[in-house]
Amino acid sequence: MKSKKGIELWKKAKKIIPGGNQLLSKRAEMFLPDQWPAYYSKAKGIEVWDLDGNKYLDFTNMAVGACILGYADPDVNKAVKKVVDGGSVSTLNPPEEVELAEMLCRLHPWAEMARYARTGGEAMVVAVRIARAASGKDKVAFCGYHGWHDWYLSANLAKDKNLDGHLLAGLEPRGVPRGLQGTALPFTYNHPEELEKIMSENKDIGVIVLEPLRHQEPQNNFLQKVRKIADQKKAVLVFDEISIGWRVNGRGVHMNYNVYPDIAVFGKTISNGYPMAAIIGRKKVMDAAQQTFISSSYWTERIGPVASLATLKKIKEKKVPAHIKRIGKMIGDGWIKLADKHNLRIKIDGPEALITFSFDYDAENQLLRTIFIQEMLKRGFLAGGSVYVSLAHTDSSVKKYLEAVDKVFALLKKGLEENNLRKILKGPIAHSGFQRLT
Amino acid sequence: MKSKKGIELWKKAKKIIPGGNQLLSKRAEMFLPDQWPAYYSKAKGIEVWDLDGNKYLDFTNMAVGACILGYADPDVNKAVKKVVDGGSVSTLNPPEEVELAEMLCRLHPWAEMARYARTGGEAMVVAVRIARAASGKDKVAFCGYHGWHDWYLSANLAKDKNLDGHLLAGLEPRGVPRGLQGTALPFTYNHPEELEKIMSENKDIGVIVLEPLRHQEPQNNFLQKVRKIADQKKAVLVFDEISIGWRVNGRGVHMNYNVYPDIAVFGKTISNGYPMAAIIGRKKVMDAAQQTFISSSYWTERIGPVASLATLKKIKEKKVPAHIKRIGKMIGDGWIKLADKHNLRIKIDGPEALITFSFDYDAENQLLRTIFIQEMLKRGFLAGGSVYVSLAHTDSSVKKYLEAVDKVFALLKKGLEENNLRKILKGPIAHSGFQRLT
Repeated sequence: MKSKKGIELWKKAKKIIPGGNQLLSKRAEMFLPDQWPAYYSKAKGIEVWDLDGNKYLDFTNMAVGACILGYADPDVNKAVKKVVDGGSVSTLNPPEEVELAEMLCRLHPWAEMARYARTGGEAMVVAVRIARAASGKDKVAFCGYHGWHDWYLSANLAKDKNLDGHLLAGLEPRGVPRGLQGTALPFTYNHPEELEKIMSENKDIGVIVLEPLRHQEPQNNFLQKVRKIADQKKAVLVFDEISIGWRVNGRGVHMNYNVYPDIAVFGKTISNGYPMAAIIGRKKVMDAAQQTFISSSYWTERIGPVASLATLKKIKEKKVPAHIKRIGKMIGDGWIKLADKHNLRIKIDGPEALITFSFDYDAENQLLRTIFIQEMLKRGFLAGGSVYVSLAHTDSSVKKYLEAVDKVFALLKKGLEENNLRKILKGPIAHSGFQRLT
Repeated sequence: MKSKKGIELWKKAKKIIPGGNQLLSKRAEMFLPDQWPAYYSKAKGIEVWDLDGNKYLDFTNMAVGACILGYADPDVNKAVKKVVDGGSVSTLNPPEEVELAEMLCRLHPWAEMARYARTGGEAMVVAVRIARAASGKDKVAFCGYHGWHDWYLSANLAKDKNLDGHLLAGLEPRGVPRGLQGTALPFTYNHPEELEKIMSENKDIGVIVLEPLRHQEPQNNFLQKVRKIADQKKAVLVFDEISIGWRVNGRGVHMNYNVYPDIAVFGKTISNGYPMAAIIGRKKVMDAAQQTFISSSYWTERIGPVASLATLKKIKEKKVPAHIKRIGKMIGDGWIKLADKHNLRIKIDGPEALITFSFDYDAENQLLRTIFIQEMLKRGFLAGGSVYVSLAHTDSSVKKYLEAVDKVFALLKKGLEENNLRKILKGPIAHSGFQRLT
C-alpha cells in the first residue's frame, strides 16, 4: 500500500506552491514526512482513495473538521448539484442567505443579524472589524487559535511566542505591519484573572475573542466571568465556534453554558465541506457593519448558504451530536483500554466530538506519534492524535480501527522496550508546528 | 413584470443582514431602489429568473464579472459535479491545485509559484502579506480598488476621501486599527510622478499595488515606469487582475504590455462563479510565504481548482477574449449610434470587455441612469452602465438589447425635453456609492 503518485506530486508541489499546499494541517510533514499520500482522488463517507487507488478509512480530522456528515454526503450534495445546475451565482442575490440568517438566529435567540464569508479566517476578520467598529476601540484580547490574518498574528510582533500555547506554535508574523504591535493581547483559557489584568492595563481593548470550548471544559464559571468583564469594560465579546460549533449540541456550544456573546462565528462544519462561514450577532453590534465597508463578490454565491441549510437540517434530523458523542466515547475508551492492555502511557483530551490522545513519553512523543501514523497507514487508516468524529463513522468502522490500534500499540510497546523505535520509522519524524518546508 | 417576492424578501433581508447582502454592488439600491428583483431563482447563460418566475437577460455585470462563460456553463459544471460526487474536500489535498499552478505559471512565464484563496479580497491580503514579508517594509502605495480589508481601507484613516476616485467613493474605515494610519498611500493611474513623489517621501514603502488596466489604457509607458520605480526602490510590484484578468487576452492583461510584476492576483473570472482566487509570483518573492503564516481550511477544497482548470481551458478553446471584444464593441457602438439618433449625451469607457456608458448631464446623471434601469427592467433586461460581456452574450441577444435601449433612450430624451423625468421614475434614485441602508 504505497502512495507513489501522491508522494511524487507532493515533492513537485513544494517547488511550485510555497509550503506545498494551502493549509498547514494538511501538509504531509504534519503527519508522516516522505510517506503520506498527500492527495486524494475520491472521498465518500469516511473512505478516502489516494492517487494510486489505495483506500483508507479517515480516523483523523475529516478535512480538519469540515465534514461532520462524512465526505460527499448525498443529501447535501443533492442540494448543491441543484444549485450548480440552476446557476451558483448571478447578478442577483441567492435567497437562501436570508433563510439561513433566520435559521441561525432562531437557533441562537440572543442573535438578531447575520453576515457571511467563505473561509473561517476571513469570517474572523469580519467579526473583529465589526467589533472594533461597534466598540470604537482597536485592541483585542484573545485566547486560542483564530487563523492567519494580521489582527491575530500581530500578537507575535510584540513577543514572538505570544501565540505559543494557542494551538499552533511558532507562527511567524513576517509581513504583519508593525503598527499593529500591541493590538492583540493573549490570555489563557480558564484564567479570567489574566483577562482582567490586561483589561485594566489597557483601556482601549474593545474586543474579546475566544473559543468557548476546545479541549478543556470551562472551570469555575469561566465563560460567565469573561462575559461580565466584557460588559464592565464595554468590550464586544466574540465566540469563535469554527471548530467546535454544531458538533456538541447541533448549534453553538456556548448555548450549553447559557453565556451569550455579542458575535459568534461559524465555519467548516456549517456546510459539510463547501466554502462557507457565518458571523451572527446582536443587532446593536452587527449594525456597525453598516459604518464600515465589508463586501466581497464570492460571498454572494449560492452553494455556501444552500449547503449550510442542508447540513444543519441533517445534523438535526439525524441527531448527529448524539451519534458523535457515542462514537467519540467508544474511540476514547478503546484507546484507554488498549493502552492499558499494552502498558503504554497515553493522555486523552475531550470532548468526544474532537477526541484526542497523545503519548506520554516526553522526548519520544513525536517519534511515537509518527510511527503510530506510519503503521496505521499501512493498515489502511488515515490516523493521528485526534479524531473529528462524523456521522459516517460507524460502530463497525471503529471496531476495525481499534483492532488496528491494538496491533500498532503492541508494536510501539515492543519498540520502546527494545529501544529500537527509530528503526521502525521509515522516514523523518513528523513536524509538530509551523516550519519552513524545503 | 413585477418582482413582488424579491422586493419583499429584500426588505426582510435588510432587517436581518446588515447592509442586506454580502456585496455592495449587488444591493438593490445600487440599481433600482424598491423595484429591483434583488434575488434569483435560476440563472443559465445570460438568462436570470427572479423569485416570481420573471425572466431577464443580464446586460449588467454577470455576477460582477465572475461568469465570463455565462451562468451555469455546462463544461465547467460537468467538472464541478464530478468533484461534488467524488468528495469536494478531504483530509488529503486536491491534486488539481498543482496542475493549476503549473498552468498559471506557463501562461505567465515570469511567475514560478502560486498560492490560492477563495475570495478576491482575501487573495489581495495574501499578496500584500507576502509582499510585505519579502520586502521587509510595511507601507503600500496603491492605485485603484482592492477590496474591504484593513491594509486597503486604512488609506481612509488618514484622510477620509483618499479612496474616492479609486472606483468606490465613501468607503468608511470604521474598525480599521489606527496603528495602520499612513500605511496605505494612494496614487493616480497614469500619474507615475505621484508614485515617485510618495516613494521618495516614504522610505519604507515595500509594496506597490495597482490594477494594470481598468477603464483607462496606460499612457506614456505608465506600467514600465511603475516597474522601474519598484525596482529602484526595492518594492514588490503587485498587479491586481481580479476584474480584468482573462477577459482581454485569455491571461493576465499585463502580458499585453510586456511589463511583469512580482505578484499577480486573479479571482472572479478564473473559475466562472465558484469561489476561487490565485496569487502567482516570482520564486524569490513567493518564498516569503514560508516565513509567515498563511493558511485556511477552505482553501483546500477541490471545486475551486477544478472549476478554474475547466474555465481557463474553455476560455482558450472558445477564443473567449475575441468574442467578448467583438460583442463589447457591438454594444458600445450601439449605444453611440442610439445616443446620436436620440440626441442624448453619453460617454463611453472601454475596454470592450468591460464596456461602460454614462450619461453626460451633470446633476441629472444618476436620475437618468436609474430610469434607464427601471425601463430596461420592464422590458426584460437587467441593465446598468456597464456590461461585463460573456461568452453567452450572442449577436441576437445584443440586437434585442439594443432595440430596448432604443426605446428607453427615446423615453429619456422625451423626459429631458419635457422636464418630467422625476415623474417617470417610480421609486427613489439609485445609490452611487457606499451608504448606510435602513
